[in-house]
Amino acid sequence: MSGRRPYGADTGGSPRPGSSQPRARRARQVADVLRQQITGGAFDSGTLPDERALGAQFHASRNAVREALGILRDEGLIARRRGVGTTVLMPKYGHGLDRLAGLAETLTGYGPLTNEVRAAHRVAEPPAAVAERLSLAPGTGAVYIERVRRMGGLPLSLDATYLAADIGVPLLDLDLAGRDLFALIEETTGGRLGRAEVAVHAVTAGPDVAGLLDVPVGAAVFAIDRLTHLADGRPVDAESLHIRADRLTLHATLHRGAPHPG
Amino acid sequence: MSGRRPYGADTGGSPRPGSSQPRARRARQVADVLRQQITGGAFDSGTLPDERALGAQFHASRNAVREALGILRDEGLIARRRGVGTTVLMPKYGHGLDRLAGLAETLTGYGPLTNEVRAAHRVAEPPAAVAERLSLAPGTGAVYIERVRRMGGLPLSLDATYLAADIGVPLLDLDLAGRDLFALIEETTGGRLGRAEVAVHAVTAGPDVAGLLDVPVGAAVFAIDRLTHLADGRPVDAESLHIRADRLTLHATLHRGAPHPG
Repeated sequence: MSGRRPYGADTGGSPRPGSSQPRARRARQVADVLRQQITGGAFDSGTLPDERALGAQFHASRNAVREALGILRDEGLIARRRGVGTTVLMPKYGHGLDRLAGLAETLTGYGPLTNEVRAAHRVAEPPAAVAERLSLAPGTGAVYIERVRRMGGLPLSLDATYLAADIGVPLLDLDLAGRDLFALIEETTGGRLGRAEVAVHAVTAGPDVAGLLDVPVGAAVFAIDRLTHLADGRPVDAESLHIRADRLTLHATLHRGAPHPG
Repeated sequence: MSGRRPYGADTGGSPRPGSSQPRARRARQVADVLRQQITGGAFDSGTLPDERALGAQFHASRNAVREALGILRDEGLIARRRGVGTTVLMPKYGHGLDRLAGLAETLTGYGPLTNEVRAAHRVAEPPAAVAERLSLAPGTGAVYIERVRRMGGLPLSLDATYLAADIGVPLLDLDLAGRDLFALIEETTGGRLGRAEVAVHAVTAGPDVAGLLDVPVGAAVFAIDRLTHLADGRPVDAESLHIRADRLTLHATLHRGAPHPG
């Protein structure tokens, strides 16, 4: 896939505690602060201060600043060009993890979200694991819908989902290129959706995801499993989402609950 | 950093819609289902079915299955060894995104979480962006604490945080190697913490993070900004977390709120 050393390879399964080089460490610390600033919209002009100014601000060497900017460039957040300086590549959208919403619902106000429908059809035999998650009765089949979603013309996410047939079939005639599935399901069923269980993974893009989302192979992307239920608790929508991590941050406001043993 | 093509490089800024190869696409689809199964604990025996069985189950070619397993190996989820087959490397812990909790609180029951304290000291001049986030009065300084957290002896996360001085200084004498900061702050202040704003990024590990977390350079990791407030709303704890994405999944159960325009 990528040429990098695999996990747990013979070449380096041993931890390297304390091997952190001072410059690499400083670079990471600077990158962390700058990442928060960039995604928080601190550089509205679109340009970062130059290396010298950043060095003074962070009490960091020029080399450490340069390495920090390299980290953020590898994350797709900034571009560095001679004579132009360091510019923020594009705004990073925020998607809330506090209520269940489709992308188009969350990102209203950022411009039109368009979908390239890559698949939308019945599937006689969905994978056994999917049939089990959706509690499908044997032989009922499912519907598979796969879309690449674009914001401002650039790919934002790849949404692939299996739907229970009675829920999915009515969607096949509707505006899959223009609408969120959640809204379409609620319109066709006449009821609100219920809860969804969401599992968020960070992964590197393989060739297929990289090609569809127009990111380098090996770029970090979110891979999200989302199982959505009707209000009565029935699971109907088993999604696998891949989202460009250079374009989207997941947000949540968490509250402290009952005390636990620390 | 890694040798891969950078974002927006001249070599391939153009989207490749529809360029998805059938095998790569099938591999991605199979990998998505298997990832959900692995992280959901479906292979408690620790071993996956062999390539032929997986091919039959997914109606996929042997090559597509092999490519799917390659994706999951690159994510650090499985190992493939001749004569042994495909094994799940380690359990993936779940960290809830529904309430504010420290890692040790969330992961009770998985065994001891230990911390290597890499830094714990006063900082006279924290970065301006940090001072602003913490609403520090000029000249009051801050406390910086950096820890590598291990579960079962293996690195799980790198936690670096700036604390307001009055909150952080009392922590410097306490059991930073054994306890969550949240619990320590609540003990020293005598009150519960309030809310935290959390921003979750997926990034690739740079050299410093890779070395400290013992993952390959270029591996996907979560980078999390978390700003935690006291119950009265005062921000006191500005953290940058890096978490191994092969060891931790972020979980949430989301509920459908009020209707939005779809």
